[in-house]
Amino acid sequence: MKILNVCCGAVGACFCGRLAQHGAEVAVTVRRDRELIEQQGFRIKSIGGDFVFRPQAVLNSAAEYRDQADYVILTSKVLPGADAVELIKAAITPHTVIVLIQNGLGIEDALQAAFPDNEILSAVAYIGVTRTAPGELDHQGAGKLILGRFGGGASSAGEKLCAAFTAAGIPADYTEDIAFYRWKKLLWNVPFNSLSVLGGGLLTCEMTDNGEVEMLCRKLMQEVIAAAHACGVELPDSMVEENIVYTRNFPPYKTSMLVDYEHNRPLEVEAIVGSVVRLARKHALNTPHLETVYAILQAFDRHRQNQI
Amino acid sequence: MKILNVCCGAVGACFCGRLAQHGAEVAVTVRRDRELIEQQGFRIKSIGGDFVFRPQAVLNSAAEYRDQADYVILTSKVLPGADAVELIKAAITPHTVIVLIQNGLGIEDALQAAFPDNEILSAVAYIGVTRTAPGELDHQGAGKLILGRFGGGASSAGEKLCAAFTAAGIPADYTEDIAFYRWKKLLWNVPFNSLSVLGGGLLTCEMTDNGEVEMLCRKLMQEVIAAAHACGVELPDSMVEENIVYTRNFPPYKTSMLVDYEHNRPLEVEAIVGSVVRLARKHALNTPHLETVYAILQAFDRHRQNQI
Repeated sequence: MKILNVCCGAVGACFCGRLAQHGAEVAVTVRRDRELIEQQGFRIKSIGGDFVFRPQAVLNSAAEYRDQADYVILTSKVLPGADAVELIKAAITPHTVIVLIQNGLGIEDALQAAFPDNEILSAVAYIGVTRTAPGELDHQGAGKLILGRFGGGASSAGEKLCAAFTAAGIPADYTEDIAFYRWKKLLWNVPFNSLSVLGGGLLTCEMTDNGEVEMLCRKLMQEVIAAAHACGVELPDSMVEENIVYTRNFPPYKTSMLVDYEHNRPLEVEAIVGSVVRLARKHALNTPHLETVYAILQAFDRHRQNQI
Repeated sequence: MKILNVCCGAVGACFCGRLAQHGAEVAVTVRRDRELIEQQGFRIKSIGGDFVFRPQAVLNSAAEYRDQADYVILTSKVLPGADAVELIKAAITPHTVIVLIQNGLGIEDALQAAFPDNEILSAVAYIGVTRTAPGELDHQGAGKLILGRFGGGASSAGEKLCAAFTAAGIPADYTEDIAFYRWKKLLWNVPFNSLSVLGGGLLTCEMTDNGEVEMLCRKLMQEVIAAAHACGVELPDSMVEENIVYTRNFPPYKTSMLVDYEHNRPLEVEAIVGSVVRLARKHALNTPHLETVYAILQAFDRHRQNQI
């Protein structure tokens, strides 16, 4: 199995590193630290066992890739200005399967338009991993994938990739309804990511312990459910309460957006909140709590990036 | 005219200092720097002319006041735990007129209950003044009062105090409808104070230049107008647009809440936003934008005070 992992950062190295450990031929493109990673690989401290991931090739861009990949796996953050098509197109052949392990909604549309004949797999990742130093990662939590064909339905390439991940120690489930899982992840991410940052650095328990914030989380989730419904995805109302209980029982936890904030990295505001707001507006839904959080968060992120 | 200014900080010193300059006998209580202020007075750099305000007495509390004040003027911030009745009660005689120069709503209720026979004047202040060092203030903007009897109606004590302020260079207007002006000030303070802080330190122009934030300011103002209406105070809808235009034409300006934030001082969340939210809830109004901002802001302030 030949894999090119484009924008291999903490998430990509954790997932694709395990595939490489179990026999896949994995090349990567990186945004930084290329020489260091070429020399020493990614050093990964992991709850699943520490390991070093030495990619077959460490490239600056997909154009440098000299092989034909079965899967091109994109693991970039979804930020304005990051053009997914540009990032991968030099490595796409007619038989390449494109795999997105990213946050957000509607991220597949531009790829489908650019590569109408390629199969596109969309994956939702659950993992807690952070970069602690150049080429060094700390994988502290979970490490699980749900993967499905964009647009829904069966996929033998998808089943095969899931089997490879699972064999490599990353539980991966194939689903014929990936849209559901994408919305399901957003249902948690929208309130908890946003409020962890806007609240000045709140841990998950600080949000569920604050009655006003917990109530706001519920309202935001209800609006996400309404937006999903308008898009033809049915998230049961019971998920609101389930997410609250689940989060209340977490050990104190920093959301990924809070970690990005603390590392002075841009926030995935548009992928996580903006995408839902735009769909809600398109369907003329009334989502005032979402609108309020989005307005503040995008201003916050913009102001902050001007200062960094 | 004998005045005791309780909790004389930047605002109190600016206003009462001018009265002292023009013949009033002004004693003050201060929360800090008592000895320094006793020795050197308040050194005030002011757009109206620099001056030094040497109070007749600089006290730790109202209990140390040995005179009978015509007016006890309270200029404390409105924060949870600051008990206005406790702060002034030792200096209240049957003929004392109580004057509040503070932000917020409903701040007079406890005083009226504690001192049912005293006249209570409520004042809305427009002033830009900051403490630059112990005993040193920089008065950069405005300096204007609107003052009226709590509950409405005429007051010769109020008219007399306005005349004294105006003679001392502080334009002060007496109104028979102070509730209107209190809500009018909140109409601006609720959106712009809150969002300046939650947006990560936004100047007024950064708020009006950001389409999403400007729209949110309008929604918040519409909800404040609805809350005022439920309380019997009519703010015309045209004030929304007027406030936007007025703010757009400001020179870049830091709101008072942002200044408090930058100086690690507690924020007047409850006085400015919480008070409106509680009234809206009492009248069963639907104010989702206000609710969202309030939930985030109170969590933000609480988290921050735990860290300071």
